[in-house]
Amino acid sequence: MIISSAQFEKFNANPLYHTIGMQVISAEDGRAVSQLRPPDNVCWPFPGQPHGGILFTQMDSTMAWAVLSAPGEGTNCTTVNLEIQYPAPARGPVFTCETRVVHRTGRSCFVRGESRDEEGGLVAMGQATFRIIRAEAML
Amino acid sequence: MIISSAQFEKFNANPLYHTIGMQVISAEDGRAVSQLRPPDNVCWPFPGQPHGGILFTQMDSTMAWAVLSAPGEGTNCTTVNLEIQYPAPARGPVFTCETRVVHRTGRSCFVRGESRDEEGGLVAMGQATFRIIRAEAML
Amino acid sequence: MIISSAQFEKFNANPLYHTIGMQVISAEDGRAVSQLRPPDNVCWPFPGQPHGGILFTQMDSTMAWAVLSAPGEGTNCTTVNLEIQYPAPARGPVFTCETRVVHRTGRSCFVRGESRDEEGGLVAMGQATFRIIRAEAML
Amino acid sequence: MIISSAQFEKFNANPLYHTIGMQVISAEDGRAVSQLRPPDNVCWPFPGQPHGGILFTQMDSTMAWAVLSAPGEGTNCTTVNLEIQYPAPARGPVFTCETRVVHRTGRSCFVRGESRDEEGGLVAMGQATFRIIRAEAML
Repeated sequence: MIISSAQFEKFNANPLYHTIGMQVISAEDGRAVSQLRPPDNVCWPFPGQPHGGILFTQMDSTMAWAVLSAPGEGTNCTTVNLEIQYPAPARGPVFTCETRVVHRTGRSCFVRGESRDEEGGLVAMGQATFRIIRAEAML
Repeated sequence: MIISSAQFEKFNANPLYHTIGMQVISAEDGRAVSQLRPPDNVCWPFPGQPHGGILFTQMDSTMAWAVLSAPGEGTNCTTVNLEIQYPAPARGPVFTCETRVVHRTGRSCFVRGESRDEEGGLVAMGQATFRIIRAEAML
Repeated sequence: MIISSAQFEKFNANPLYHTIGMQVISAEDGRAVSQLRPPDNVCWPFPGQPHGGILFTQMDSTMAWAVLSAPGEGTNCTTVNLEIQYPAPARGPVFTCETRVVHRTGRSCFVRGESRDEEGGLVAMGQATFRIIRAEAML
Repeated sequence: MIISSAQFEKFNANPLYHTIGMQVISAEDGRAVSQLRPPDNVCWPFPGQPHGGILFTQMDSTMAWAVLSAPGEGTNCTTVNLEIQYPAPARGPVFTCETRVVHRTGRSCFVRGESRDEEGGLVAMGQATFRIIRAEAML
């Protein structure tokens, strides 16, 4: 799937990304990158630190873009399982998440990702299985 | 930690829970239960279905309450890792998450949880390690 | 699948179980139990303690029996992913692993298990997804 | 830790590696590689395919070498949790596992690894947390 700038603007305009402060920056050839600038309401219980679930949401979504960036248009995907580890507290105004498809087999996609703070410190790393579904199956 | 109704009201009033539509119902003796009534803005990309990251956030938070419900007051905890599986699409207005501490050893806590829809269908199951930290260490 | 004592003897006679010292004790209605009496050659690097991979092998195999104990005869299964946690060092001559199917959906099976030492201490806990396959697909 | 050829020979001579047919090839600067040539007795239930638990044992052990290859001599480590995914059936006579430390923080080490068959096909991928322990604590 080739994603144009106009399409990114459209995708990034969804209410979930707005709520958590996330934007997809690139998605191509099985790789995707996003940035998170979490608003105060999702930085709880530690002020200035996005909740682990918000970092998870960013990673899960960014992984899905890595999956979708590879196959033909008209497909979607769903998370089967995701294991996330938090090596360090997540401090700072912005977090970059990089994800990539490691392996693809039939309808399954194996994906990995890392989220880093502004200094490059690792704050989350994940490993997941996605199932590829047809767009019609979404409805 | 014994948690009174007044304390629950206070805890549940935080901005994160408000954003995702979550409320803790009970937390006692290493077990905690919460309910999620996700607002539309976190039900994306599938209308009426909370994003997997929102279900994760509910489970992670509810697990933390299971951890905190056991030891003495004045402690907090942080997620080291959490593996979540999504057996089925999450449809419906309300999701109940039940979590429990399976094992505790020194500063580590091993926790499990399940989230179910209104008909009792399993929509997420998780397994996690938490690290117990002192309240002062939060600051 | 109903499994007779004679069948258990046959299943337990396989070379892998012999190598690691494992025997399946029961498998019925989506639940299975096994015992591990690890020989010295798999207790490394810590004498008297089975390697974590041996505990994993016991759990993975016992989970497979839980999966197979439920559907009709003539099926097999394969592990898609398994997350294992080790709450404590595994000491002692025998370890009992109990597993159960938590959810089944189409060709996927979600399973959990725990392994305990002789005193009932938790030494491993796991969570997995299995894919159900037809026996013919094995060949 | 710098590991000489003579030391490798010694390490590889342990009974567990002999049982599963594993040899560590290199371990340096937080990276380790091993090869598995599984004997028939661990290739069950599918002839010619090592059991998933044997691939796990190889990965877990190789990750431990990645962990140990970095810090000062006299330390050891223990697996806290490991999530393994099996993208494809493991066929063939030899499997190469590559592992690396992704992040290190205090006493914890976050590690990843992949196992591939002779043609380079991915048969297992893992993500783990290790705890670093002092050698004395082993005894």
